[in-house]
Parts: sequence; structure tokens; C-alpha cells
Amino acid sequence: MTVNIGLIGLGMIGRDHLQRFQTVIQNARVSAVCDINRNVTDAIAREYGAQPYYDAVEMIQSDDVDAIFICSIGPVHKEQILAAIKAGKPVFCEKPLTPTANEAKAIIDAEVAYGKRMLQLGFMRRFDPGYNQLKATLDSGELGEILLIHCAHRNASVPESYTLEMAINDSATHEIDIIRYLLNENIVSVRVDKPQKKTRRACAHLQDPLIVIFETESGVRIDDELFVNCDYGYDIRCEVIGENAISALTEQALTTVRSAQGYSRAIPKTCMERFATAYDREVQNFVDRVNLGAEMSGPSSWDGFVVAMVCDAGLASLKDGEKHAVSLPECPALYR
Amino acid sequence: MTVNIGLIGLGMIGRDHLQRFQTVIQNARVSAVCDINRNVTDAIAREYGAQPYYDAVEMIQSDDVDAIFICSIGPVHKEQILAAIKAGKPVFCEKPLTPTANEAKAIIDAEVAYGKRMLQLGFMRRFDPGYNQLKATLDSGELGEILLIHCAHRNASVPESYTLEMAINDSATHEIDIIRYLLNENIVSVRVDKPQKKTRRACAHLQDPLIVIFETESGVRIDDELFVNCDYGYDIRCEVIGENAISALTEQALTTVRSAQGYSRAIPKTCMERFATAYDREVQNFVDRVNLGAEMSGPSSWDGFVVAMVCDAGLASLKDGEKHAVSLPECPALYR
Amino acid sequence: MTVNIGLIGLGMIGRDHLQRFQTVIQNARVSAVCDINRNVTDAIAREYGAQPYYDAVEMIQSDDVDAIFICSIGPVHKEQILAAIKAGKPVFCEKPLTPTANEAKAIIDAEVAYGKRMLQLGFMRRFDPGYNQLKATLDSGELGEILLIHCAHRNASVPESYTLEMAINDSATHEIDIIRYLLNENIVSVRVDKPQKKTRRACAHLQDPLIVIFETESGVRIDDELFVNCDYGYDIRCEVIGENAISALTEQALTTVRSAQGYSRAIPKTCMERFATAYDREVQNFVDRVNLGAEMSGPSSWDGFVVAMVCDAGLASLKDGEKHAVSLPECPALYR
Amino acid sequence: MTVNIGLIGLGMIGRDHLQRFQTVIQNARVSAVCDINRNVTDAIAREYGAQPYYDAVEMIQSDDVDAIFICSIGPVHKEQILAAIKAGKPVFCEKPLTPTANEAKAIIDAEVAYGKRMLQLGFMRRFDPGYNQLKATLDSGELGEILLIHCAHRNASVPESYTLEMAINDSATHEIDIIRYLLNENIVSVRVDKPQKKTRRACAHLQDPLIVIFETESGVRIDDELFVNCDYGYDIRCEVIGENAISALTEQALTTVRSAQGYSRAIPKTCMERFATAYDREVQNFVDRVNLGAEMSGPSSWDGFVVAMVCDAGLASLKDGEKHAVSLPECPALYR
Repeated sequence: MTVNIGLIGLGMIGRDHLQRFQTVIQNARVSAVCDINRNVTDAIAREYGAQPYYDAVEMIQSDDVDAIFICSIGPVHKEQILAAIKAGKPVFCEKPLTPTANEAKAIIDAEVAYGKRMLQLGFMRRFDPGYNQLKATLDSGELGEILLIHCAHRNASVPESYTLEMAINDSATHEIDIIRYLLNENIVSVRVDKPQKKTRRACAHLQDPLIVIFETESGVRIDDELFVNCDYGYDIRCEVIGENAISALTEQALTTVRSAQGYSRAIPKTCMERFATAYDREVQNFVDRVNLGAEMSGPSSWDGFVVAMVCDAGLASLKDGEKHAVSLPECPALYR
Repeated sequence: MTVNIGLIGLGMIGRDHLQRFQTVIQNARVSAVCDINRNVTDAIAREYGAQPYYDAVEMIQSDDVDAIFICSIGPVHKEQILAAIKAGKPVFCEKPLTPTANEAKAIIDAEVAYGKRMLQLGFMRRFDPGYNQLKATLDSGELGEILLIHCAHRNASVPESYTLEMAINDSATHEIDIIRYLLNENIVSVRVDKPQKKTRRACAHLQDPLIVIFETESGVRIDDELFVNCDYGYDIRCEVIGENAISALTEQALTTVRSAQGYSRAIPKTCMERFATAYDREVQNFVDRVNLGAEMSGPSSWDGFVVAMVCDAGLASLKDGEKHAVSLPECPALYR
Repeated sequence: MTVNIGLIGLGMIGRDHLQRFQTVIQNARVSAVCDINRNVTDAIAREYGAQPYYDAVEMIQSDDVDAIFICSIGPVHKEQILAAIKAGKPVFCEKPLTPTANEAKAIIDAEVAYGKRMLQLGFMRRFDPGYNQLKATLDSGELGEILLIHCAHRNASVPESYTLEMAINDSATHEIDIIRYLLNENIVSVRVDKPQKKTRRACAHLQDPLIVIFETESGVRIDDELFVNCDYGYDIRCEVIGENAISALTEQALTTVRSAQGYSRAIPKTCMERFATAYDREVQNFVDRVNLGAEMSGPSSWDGFVVAMVCDAGLASLKDGEKHAVSLPECPALYR
Repeated sequence: MTVNIGLIGLGMIGRDHLQRFQTVIQNARVSAVCDINRNVTDAIAREYGAQPYYDAVEMIQSDDVDAIFICSIGPVHKEQILAAIKAGKPVFCEKPLTPTANEAKAIIDAEVAYGKRMLQLGFMRRFDPGYNQLKATLDSGELGEILLIHCAHRNASVPESYTLEMAINDSATHEIDIIRYLLNENIVSVRVDKPQKKTRRACAHLQDPLIVIFETESGVRIDDELFVNCDYGYDIRCEVIGENAISALTEQALTTVRSAQGYSRAIPKTCMERFATAYDREVQNFVDRVNLGAEMSGPSSWDGFVVAMVCDAGLASLKDGEKHAVSLPECPALYR
């Protein structure tokens, strides 16, 4: 069966997924596209043989689409997701779920009322083979009780539009989600450390690098170096320290070169390059679940809500430098 | 569109591909299965909801199938492939194409007469991301003129049924094909070196390890260590020595562990584990080409014929230890 | 010329150095040994053909010795060092210089009054080829301005006598000194983070692991994971993050092994194993300077005093968890 | 005690050792220097405060020197070594022992007649910590029975004076010696493979790279890639394949760099850089043995003779491409 996908938002990430549906994803086609920019929408609709829409809710309700793929900006996510749930159509939503925890709560309430997981959130790292292997090692018990995790999240550079808050809301969100995935427990506090020195490659309004320190329910301490103008590449690192052993992600290079420059391995330049397999697998997972008529799997609305709560604490700490607690309501049975 | 696949041969590799069609491959289903063992065929047909056949040619000709997937033993490949070409149905054939170069020649003649590439041969390494990156580095010119290649092909162990000749016909075939892929040129000579020492883990009828030395048209010298009872894992290595630089496959581990046993990375235990991505990609490539109504791509009948010719020289050298030339007829235009 | 060494303190580290003088160090001999334990002293004096002393000051003043080598416990260092300076004899002192910064100050005053550097302190890492190469990379400017340093200091295990304070006074001292060596600047603040979880391998009175965070004058932020019961080995890591590039210590393994356990490299089990070359080179450096009649080089009394000041701030933070400033007097000209 | 060294030959390697005696080696001084070039000799003698000699035998016999250090060209080694033995003075001789096996035999006869090992040959790799660790792993039995060894010997470039024969006599000699060291057995055959392609970086008179294949008494097969214009650095590799496991030398880098060029480790540029520690340790070993009044240890005259015999077979194979046997006389008791 071929799933008819309605894709909302034709910016960079939307077009990247559109390309993915064309070349990699099986059993699905983008049958309708929607963007408030009519010219862009018409051009892309023509190119891909999809139905053009300029109003997301209208498209969500139409018979042209079986499932919704949201790549629009955060502030409109809530309305679009609620419309999809109301229409009984499964929805994939790029992160963040919503800009605020409050809005995320409304989505959870609607999904719980609907009685079934309808949404997969775009935390693609959960589909990365490296993180999957790391989790398998943790789950095997080989490392013993986990004590510490050291993370680094490095981008070659960010555009001028990247704000200080995005270090939390855009970059750290990935570690926030993956820590919960690795450890099967929640984060209970956040503290943001602003080193006095910042790279001269960063815009004046940024503090770069930052160090964020998380604690989990059981007391695991995680430090996360966020360095978004590191210049040399896109480099994601994760080292898990256990009582018995330590496991870490490798550079995952496929080949080496020995040359006059030394013995070297390539480092990815972009997120798209580093997590190419993860992106493909998360989207295929969504399509496969739709095709099975099953509940959605992978990162959920609840995960999006929890990440938003942790981000709120992080943003508060970004202002005052203090440790802020994260206090979560009880997790609804639907997400357990 | 969903391609209806007729799968011939329900041994280990056939069942592995059957599983792959069930779980990974998109836009295709195994609609018919065929094996001379009627009980096995009936059981699997029932389990997978496929039509059972006990005669391959009958299945090939039936309307149940759009494309043929051959996992039977080598001696019956020729008849099955010729029937598929005659029926105008695309065919994927597990290596070897045929046990002898003569039989392979008959297939080429039939395909040339048909006027279109109808077959993809199962040399999955051409779809391995590591080899793909190695080839990209070669093609980029970064290494300069290529002088030497060092290969190693190590299996943890082989069953008692593995014969001395299979070191050439089964194991070395992979390097024979991949060298041609990497260098875009043919092998012109083969010499098999039998080291005096063999591992006591090998059966009495084997000589293990073996060293095979190839030369290409332009004079590149390749040595290939075949060690099929190395005990420690399935380990494939390839180092390409150029005038300017050297590039090699890595171990491709995704994570590391620091423990009382040291600082370690896992080594795959089996071919299926090491080349999982390559297997998935080669089969998906076949299905995609069928769906496009395009000519087949990837390793061709001609590649299978050439490998068979190189193997013949290798088997001759296995007997006398001398260097044997490989003399190829002109490559038909269809395969250039 | 052969330097006559008077060695004080015949415990584990004293005996290790004694062995080093016997087997590795050139142009020096241990001509006298001193310990308050008379039986031990007599036995070792006999074995090594050295003059036995039971009173350190008496030995320092005797004509039997040209230079003093202090391996006694910290509380007696001050008296012994002052006696050596008074006698005009160069002195090597194992770290710490003194248990308190006040005592260290007295040594500095005496050395300044003497008008010449008379002491080399036992921070052996400054003689480690890995740290030397890291410093050369920093000094070359290749990394650009330095922003962050991540350190880890892991011991397989510590004896029951190891106290919570020793994590600062014994373990972190090495990073405190080496950071100053790498960056050519002082540490201005210390904060000790106590993760909520501790390894069950640690004694009840310990908090293990600990994270210590330093800031330098220019604002470089350093985090140091102290994990002294990590079980798997003695593992020292240092990663320096610059504006342009990042450099880090490797595992420095000389060989690899591929076995059924995977692809592995050995990790040293002890400090003595990891820093064998550094120990040899620091002692030879001391002997060479004595032989040249030159001022002492390498880590100085001032370095010892500064480390003691940073440790005091660290111990205060260990109690209250707050960030404590380090406020240093002006560095005397002798040490600049 | 300080050994008075008489150094013969003030070319590049002689001056390098002179520098080593000045800065690293303990318990020895170069008290006399000798070269047929009087100007060079006088200048160096003045600079280092050594006695100048223009005739090697005269210097060997003088009371100025306790031990002889030969860095002259091969053809004069025999006369100088025999004079040293006659004078009862220990001698260190840079490789090769002599240009021909016949001359080497004369030295062995003289040393056997003298009744004591008087010579250490300059195969410095036996003092390299990496090879030492590799040998320890072999000797531990961890690898099981050894089956194959893969070696590579790569120089960035060689001067125009480097001849085709020197690939055997100068480069391969190191592997010839180290294989015997690692395996404790002799080489019984040699075959030189000349790949058809050579690097355009090599002079017209060279064949570069070459592959040399050795077999040992027990049947271990060794291949050695000699590539002396590889351009990228000085790179020595050795991988030992055993029945149970495989061990190999690492790149032995002390630090890594992550930069826009990727994740890299330095590769040494010269032999002196790669084997700095080995050179220091071999010379110190010689001095220590002299000081002990002990027989010489490390590579012996017999090792030099055996290497010369293997080289003779290698040179014969370089001409005809055939496998040549090495047939050794019985090893005198002195060297067993």
C-alpha cells in the first residue's frame, strides 16, 4: 500500500524530506504540499505532481492525504497537530513539538482523549545506528550502573539568525531527548554554565561555547558541550561512564587516508550528512507504522512535552546561571 | 507499484533474502517460491502467503511473477537465467553466475541477443558504503596513480563442506569483482601462493590461509589474504596504495568500550552482519530498476563471466603454483 | 661526573625511585638513604651500598650527598627543603610541596633569599611526551585561542586510606599543574561538583566520581572528571578545544590485537606504567641540572605554592559546593 | 665510569650519533673521532673536545679509546672490526655488518676465536618499544602458532644515490632482522616481486615499490612492501597473523587533531623521528654492556652474517624473479 503524505512547510527541512520521499522512502508518496507562500507551493506541486494547498487545515481534512508531515515553523504546530488528530490522521512532526510546554500539554490532552498515539516527533537520533548500539550496550548491563555522561554537540557554524536561546531550544534538545532514550529516565535539573571565553567566530549576540549540566532522577550527571561555531565540522559525541566500563560513540568513518597531512579520517560537515541514515530510518518508520495501521512509535508527544519542560528550565538557567529543577506531571498511561 | 518476485532456492541464503523482502525491501513482495524440496516449499509458501512451485522454469513463465530471484545452486543457474531472459523477466542471481565460464558465455550471448541488460549479479560489496567511499576517493584522483592493493578476507570459520577450490570460487570472487569495480580495469593474471603453514583450525583438506596475487591491465599488483578459519570474526580489509596517498577501509565500529579487557571495538562475526547494509541496498536497487522498467544495473552477466575467467586461472594456479594469464574476449557493447 | 644522591623516605615511591636510579638514571648514584624506620633503612642501605641515616637534616648536611631527593610524607617536607637550601644543595621533592600553602610560602621566601632556584617538584606529567606534544600544538597557534579543556583522571582503584580530600590534594593536583603548564596562565576559580551517584566500588567515605571545574585568568573553562575507582585501568585524558581546532591525548597504545574479544588496545593499569617515561625523564632532568651546576628547572616551588592555593579553594568548594576564587600574591622574579 | 668512545665515520649517521652522545647517552663520551676527511675531522674534534684521527686502526689501538663506534661506509667495516677485536675493544657497528656474507664470515671467525661476543650491530628496531611489545605478545602465546606476517617499509623519499639493490641491502635488512627477532627462527627463502607499475616519484633506475616474500624454517610466510618514495612519511607497519589472534603495530601517535582537514594523527617524516627512542636505547645498551665489562648483547655479528646471506638471495631474486633458498652454516655456540 502507498501512503499519501500531506507535507506542510516547504522550507529547507521540508524540501529535504520531500527529496527523501522521492528517492529513499518506500510505500509512500507526497500527494499534497502546503505552504503559505503560494508561488513556492505551486512550483513544487507542479514539479512533484502533488496537489497544492495554502491552508494546512484544509489539506489535513482533504481526502488527498492519509498522513500528515509537519515541517512548518513551531508556532503553528499545535493547530496543525490538533487538526490531524481530529481528522484521525497520523502525523509526523519535526521538532520542536511546540515552542512552549503549555501548547505541548494541549496536544497530549487531545491525543490521550483520542485514545491512541497519533504522532511521531522528529528526534532522528533515536534511529541512528551508533546511538542504537550504545543503548544496546547500556541495556546489556555490561557497563554496570551509569554514573556520568559526557556529550558534545558541535556545528561547523550557525547562521546569524541563530539566537542564544536556540542553543537550548534547538541544539541541546537533541541531547535532552537522547539522554532520556539511553537511560529510560527523566531529567530533574538543568544548569547552564557560560564560559567566560567565546569564540570570535560567533556573532556578538551569542555565547559560544556553552556547557549545560543535567541531572536525572537516579542522579546521573550529564555535561553537554554546545559549540555551534567550532568551524571544523559537525561532530556529535557521547561517552557513557558506568561502574564497570565506559562506552562511547566513534567517529564512524568508513575509510582512512594516509597523506602528507598525516593519518586522517573525514568528519561530517553537516547534520544531514552525519545523521543521513537516521533521517531515512525515522521517516520510513513513520510510513511503516501508518501502513500497518498501528499506533505511532518512536519519540512521542509526551517526549516533546518533556523536552519542552527541560528547555524551559534551561532557558531560566541561561538567564541566572542557577540550577533549575524540572517538575513533570505524571506521565499518562498512553505513553508508558 | 509492487513487484511480484519469484524466489528460487530456499536454502540459507534464499531464506535470508525472503526475510529481507518481508522486513526491509520496499515495493516488492515474494509472490512465488520454488524449491525441489516439496515439503520445504509448501511450508514456506504457506508461511509467506506465496504460490509454491517445484519447477523453476514453470514458475518463471507463470503470470504470478514479474521478476526472478535466483538463490539456487550454481549448476542450475544457466537454465533458470536463460528461461528468465526468454520470458523477458528481470533476474537477480546470487553469485556465482555459473560454475564455468563457458556457461556464463551462453548467458551473455542470450542477453546480448535480447538487446538489454536483464540481470543483476549478487556481488553485494559494490553496495557497501565503505567500498563506495573508497571508490569515490580513488575517482577523485586524491591518491594519484594506483600502484598496489592489499586485501584480506577473513572468516571466523567455514563448514566442513567448504573445499579448497571454494577459497577461489567463493571467497576470492568478492575481491576479484571489487578490484575491477575500484579500478575500472580487468585482471590479467593470477597466482596462488600456498604458505607452508596452515591453521590447525582448518579441516585436513584445506590449505588455510592462502595468498592470491592479481595483476591488472595497467599493472596494479593486488595481494589477497584468504583466511577462512581466522576464528576471531569476519574481517574484510582493503588498502589502496597510490602515488600520492593511501586509503583503506576502517573497522567501521560505531562504538568503543573501555573495560578491564582494554580499549576495544567490536568486529562483526558474519558476512551477513558486516554487509547488512550492502545486501539491503543491492536488493532494493534490483527492485527499483524493475519498477522503473529500466535496464538492470550493478554487477552484470559480463562481470560474472569475467570473474569466472579469473577464477579458472586461479584454480589452475592453485594446482601448479604458477602465474596464469587471463585472456578475455572483447566486451560486448551492452556491458560497456 | 656522578651526583651523590641522598634519598629521604623509603616507602613505595621512594623505593620506586631507588630502583630507577639503579637501572635507568645516568650520572647519579644513591649514596645515602634516610628513613625514621631504622630496620628498613639499614636493610636498604646494605642492599644498595648506601650510607644509612635516620635523621634527614643530618644526612642533608653530610658530605656524603651532593643533592637531596625527598620522598617522605608531606608534613616533613618544609623542614627538609629548608635544610637543603641552607646547605646549598639542590633538592628534588615529590609532590605535594607542602600540605599547606603557608608552608609553601616559607620555602619560596627561603629560595628567593638564596637567590637561585634550588628545587624541582615532582609533577612528572610535564615530562610526558604526549603532554609535550599537546603543548607544542598549543604553542604553534594551530588551535587558535583556547576556550575549553576536558580532562579525565581515572584510577583503577584506590586503597582504603585514600580520603575524600585526596581527590583534590593528590589526584586533581596533576591537572592543576598541567593546565598551568599548557596554558601559561593561572587558575582563578575552582568549583567541585559532587554527582549524586557514586560507584559502589568506592569506600563509604568517598564521593567517586567528582567533577572539578576550573577557570583561568583569561577565562578558559576546564572540567576534570576525577574517577578513582573506575576499575578498568589508569586512564588520563585531555582534550583542548580551540577556536580553530581541537587536540587531544591518544591512548598511546603501541600495538593492537584482533581476537574473539574484538579489536583492542591495552590500557595501562597504573600511574607508574602510564607515566614511566615521564618519571625517568623528570629524574634525569634533575640530575642533569645538578651536574651542569645550573639552576633547577621544571616545576618549581612557586608551582607547588600555586597548586596548594588552588587546592585550598578546591577543598573549600568540596565542602560547600560553591565556586571559590584563588587569589595569588605576585610571582617573585625568580620564578618568572 | 665513563666509557671513552672512538667514533669512526663523520657522515650523517656518525654526526647524528655524536649528537646523541652529547645530549642523551649517559656514562660515555666521544673521546676520539676519525674520518679520512682531515678538515671535517679537525673541525669536529675541536668542537667536541675529542682527539682527531685520520687512520681508524691507529685510533682503535690508541689508549684514548675504550670502545669503538663504527659509522664508516660498509667496505671498510671488516678491517676496522677485526682491529677492534684484536685490540680487545668492544665495538658497535652500524648496519650493514659488511657488504658481503664472506666478509661477515671472517668477522665471526675472529670473534669465535676471541671467545666472546665483542660486537653489537646497529639494528635499532630491536630496541623499539612497539616491536618489543609485539614480541612480548608473540612470546606470551596469545596469538597461537604464527602463520603470516605483513610488513610495510615506507620512506617519504630517497636520494638519487639510492640504488635498486639498496631496497634489499638497506631497507629490507630491517625487516629481515626483525622477523628473526620476532619469530626466533631463520629465513630459508626469498622471492622479490617487481610490480609492473612504479611511482613516477622514483628515479628512473629504481623499481619502486617492490614486494619481497620470505619464508622461515617453520613455514611462516612474510610479505614486505618496500616503498621508498611514498611521499607521505616514514611509515613502518607489521601485522602478525596467528592461529588465535592477530597483533599489529599502531601509528603510535601521541595526540590527535580535529580540524577542517578532518580527524588526524601525525605520521613521522623520517626514520630518525620514528625510531628516536630505539636509537637512544641501542646506544645506551652498548655503553651499559661496556661499563659492566659484559659480553655484547643485542644484534650480533652472526645476525649481520645471516642478514647478509638473506640479502644475497634477495639480490639474486631481484635479478631473475625466482625464489632463492638461503642455506646457512651451523650457528656457532657463541651466538646461540
